[in-house]
Amino acid sequence: MVVTAYEVSGKIDYSKLVEKFGSKTIEPDLLKKLEAQTVGKGRVPKLHRFLRRNIFFSHRDLDALLGTVEKKKPMYLYTGRGPSSAAMHLGHLVPFLFTQWLQKALGCPLVIQMTDDEKFLFKGTYTDSDGDNLQHFASLTTENARDIIACGFDFEKTFLFSDLDYVGRMYPNICRIWKAVTTNTVNGIFGFDGTSNIGKIAFPAVQAAPSFASSFPTVLGVGSDKRRDTEYACLIPCAIDQDPYFRMTRDIAHKLVGKGHPLGGKPALIHSKFFPPLQGAEGKMSSSDTNSAIFLTDTPKDIERKIKQHAFSGGKDTKELQQEHGADLEVDVAYQWLRFFLEDDDELEAIGKSYGSGKGEFWSTGLVKARLVKVLQDLVAQHQERRAKVTDEEVRKWMSERFIG
Amino acid sequence: MVVTAYEVSGKIDYSKLVEKFGSKTIEPDLLKKLEAQTVGKGRVPKLHRFLRRNIFFSHRDLDALLGTVEKKKPMYLYTGRGPSSAAMHLGHLVPFLFTQWLQKALGCPLVIQMTDDEKFLFKGTYTDSDGDNLQHFASLTTENARDIIACGFDFEKTFLFSDLDYVGRMYPNICRIWKAVTTNTVNGIFGFDGTSNIGKIAFPAVQAAPSFASSFPTVLGVGSDKRRDTEYACLIPCAIDQDPYFRMTRDIAHKLVGKGHPLGGKPALIHSKFFPPLQGAEGKMSSSDTNSAIFLTDTPKDIERKIKQHAFSGGKDTKELQQEHGADLEVDVAYQWLRFFLEDDDELEAIGKSYGSGKGEFWSTGLVKARLVKVLQDLVAQHQERRAKVTDEEVRKWMSERFIG
Repeated sequence: MVVTAYEVSGKIDYSKLVEKFGSKTIEPDLLKKLEAQTVGKGRVPKLHRFLRRNIFFSHRDLDALLGTVEKKKPMYLYTGRGPSSAAMHLGHLVPFLFTQWLQKALGCPLVIQMTDDEKFLFKGTYTDSDGDNLQHFASLTTENARDIIACGFDFEKTFLFSDLDYVGRMYPNICRIWKAVTTNTVNGIFGFDGTSNIGKIAFPAVQAAPSFASSFPTVLGVGSDKRRDTEYACLIPCAIDQDPYFRMTRDIAHKLVGKGHPLGGKPALIHSKFFPPLQGAEGKMSSSDTNSAIFLTDTPKDIERKIKQHAFSGGKDTKELQQEHGADLEVDVAYQWLRFFLEDDDELEAIGKSYGSGKGEFWSTGLVKARLVKVLQDLVAQHQERRAKVTDEEVRKWMSERFIG
Repeated sequence: MVVTAYEVSGKIDYSKLVEKFGSKTIEPDLLKKLEAQTVGKGRVPKLHRFLRRNIFFSHRDLDALLGTVEKKKPMYLYTGRGPSSAAMHLGHLVPFLFTQWLQKALGCPLVIQMTDDEKFLFKGTYTDSDGDNLQHFASLTTENARDIIACGFDFEKTFLFSDLDYVGRMYPNICRIWKAVTTNTVNGIFGFDGTSNIGKIAFPAVQAAPSFASSFPTVLGVGSDKRRDTEYACLIPCAIDQDPYFRMTRDIAHKLVGKGHPLGGKPALIHSKFFPPLQGAEGKMSSSDTNSAIFLTDTPKDIERKIKQHAFSGGKDTKELQQEHGADLEVDVAYQWLRFFLEDDDELEAIGKSYGSGKGEFWSTGLVKARLVKVLQDLVAQHQERRAKVTDEEVRKWMSERFIG
């Protein structure tokens, strides 16, 4: 198992990961506390399926964050994306779907960072004849912004920004973070060395900066006179491979806030498991292998073909064996994906029982895959419909600096 | 002799320095070429005394830059200051006085960078009780801006900016520079190591970025559609200890411009010697020892006292010895300072002859010091008068992003 900010591979042991990273698993008591501040306030009917099914499973300081919410102190959400390809896939959707729910459930502002700078620093190219492709990553920001906007965030409470555009506003905080972190520290956390370009060394501070409300003087209305003294707390929903950035951030967070900050400046985190690739429940889905992923641009036929041909099956080799032993749900991609995307708990349970035992309505891989195909075709079609309505002008509005507090 | 971007000490051997850095000394032919493009165009009566007296003595690509000027291609000047103290001293004035002359002589735009970010990264402090002092450096920018404005630049052609305010506009180029430079390279050039904060590693790109006209889309009117293709050339007047930044810049400059750039993107440089401290002609003047420097805030009495008490004398110990052998002009601070600030070549020569021989009107240290006191009292008084007229509103105007091309 390898899980770093830049690589996820092998069979993931999430208990080990939590232990290694030093985060905490989300226990039933904490879920109840979260339920009280969300469902209990009448903003959502029930906890999101990602919480009900332990997909968002780990956290840092979520209990403390909920404590401040209870005291009616201000909080905001921060998430982001590195725009590395024009077409986003289902795995990319996971944090955004969850964040959209969190925003509604907590009724709070949200900032979404597009790290086009990072993607250029790590994956950009330069040729003598054509120059570099920085603008390519800037344009991916706009393309991806459409998909993100289509997730249904609250426009009045959401600010979407590109680092290439917005970094100047965060620069005082970036300098503070730069000053507080040594090269040895980032080399240790991210595996950089002397051959790494200096942008890689500098970048972690750019991803850290939105964890502080004072990076958003206009957006969160944290005026410069009392920027340090804001009580705004930050909650970051992300896949667990992004945790290293925020461990670094939390270690130096006290240097960026006043004494009165309820979490000592530290952003709280809520971590998801990885969305498994089609070929099997290891690593995480990647855009670089088109057959390992369902893209948000795929047609209903694409979806059907990919699921039928490529989704790794936990079913047995013959009808007889399957009906006798049932499928291994843990490694079955179709079933695992249904856990992410089928909303109805009763139906999911019924499918699991039937498929896992090899008996009843969903006894075979083919039947479960057919159900998944339908779920994803609906999801993707609805997404495409919403995305088609997002104009350039719309994107510009979401990305314009304005008060959302 | 130690000369790095962060330390200057010992007796400076400028020929060795030029050899070590790989720059070129300014030869009479090149001075003639510069004269043709400045004095020859009727913009100034003669070459600046810093050129006549070999104080700006070294360069990179100045000949190529003058070639583009001759062809009427656009060029701009770039200089800067790290605002480490509210009170600037005479040594700080040297590059600005010269740049003011260059701007007039070449009739070109000028950008002046205030590296308040750098000063915080290298000299900032943090305490648990009071937080950090980033704002202190930001306010030094404003204080120093008054002194710089008082040097008499052309408002219509000058943009003064603080990194903390303006860095966002340069960020695409900063990313390009970051990507092109490794940690090993900056460690080698600047002597950083794993214990250095990551801001120190990142900063050289911030000082490099203004070398490219595309960092000033509005200020130089280099629209984003053709930013890469601008032919704008850049000339940087600076003390020679700043050369390492621009060697790094020149090495990767081709990656930031199109094929048509007359200097392959490389900024041209013109280097000055150091302004010697009062105590002797070694190292460079520093603000941290108040008795080693004349500050632009000093009173006429301060100036007189400091020169009389602290200026290192190259004169002999007794009247008899002085009248027999004369003074050692090379190490005599009063004489060396007159070389910087006494405009009249004939008078300077007369003083040198008299003092160096111990005979005539300026035979003694006291007489030469008295002449220097008068020169500096006039200079500083005039500066203070101009500075007093620079209002906050005025500073704001000079620092507002606007077209100066």
